[in-house]
Amino acid sequence: MFLRNLREIPAEAVEEGASGTQIRWAIGENVGAPNFHMRVFTLAPGGSTPLHEHVWEHEVFILRGEGVVVEDTDERAFGPEDVVYIQPGERHQFRNTGGADLEFICVIPAAGRCGVK
Amino acid sequence: MFLRNLREIPAEAVEEGASGTQIRWAIGENVGAPNFHMRVFTLAPGGSTPLHEHVWEHEVFILRGEGVVVEDTDERAFGPEDVVYIQPGERHQFRNTGGADLEFICVIPAAGRCGVK
Repeated sequence: MFLRNLREIPAEAVEEGASGTQIRWAIGENVGAPNFHMRVFTLAPGGSTPLHEHVWEHEVFILRGEGVVVEDTDERAFGPEDVVYIQPGERHQFRNTGGADLEFICVIPAAGRCGVK
Repeated sequence: MFLRNLREIPAEAVEEGASGTQIRWAIGENVGAPNFHMRVFTLAPGGSTPLHEHVWEHEVFILRGEGVVVEDTDERAFGPEDVVYIQPGERHQFRNTGGADLEFICVIPAAGRCGVK
């Protein structure tokens, strides 16, 4: 068993098309998780993740804050306790539209699986 | 994209070795998620999940409440924002030791993958 508080896990800046965004790898290669990895993102007010698409899915749970998820022709608002599923290949971006930090869990397939590099 | 509030998802009772435990399938077969599924458990005070083991892993994030995770020779307390990884094959049980509901996310491989039936 591995048990750790989220805040003990180092937050790393997300570069490449993001702004005001940090990531914590909560459960991943650090514990040898074989199939999928759990990350927690923190977006400062006004921050955003890259607008992009890829061949793997996202399974997202909003922990706190307010934002929108942007798609090609759609933009939908979300808040705490919302769950968001981004299909493989779907273009997407998360933006913090609130006045406080936005935090969400985002689970992806492990590297080497399902097209993840 | 699929976006839904957790509380709109029906809670089902967990039988077979559990007590005071409900599950919401947040992201799973309802959206055709191919690789892993996100569930949210709610344990009433005193409630517990089954003490068992299986060949797939758990990736857990504690949303609220206080509890312990029990293993063969170990028992560890947890609280909000703790992350817990249960390895494939590791015996485990979650118990609510607090006075309010315990809620946590638990992600598992999709049915038909990694030994999940």
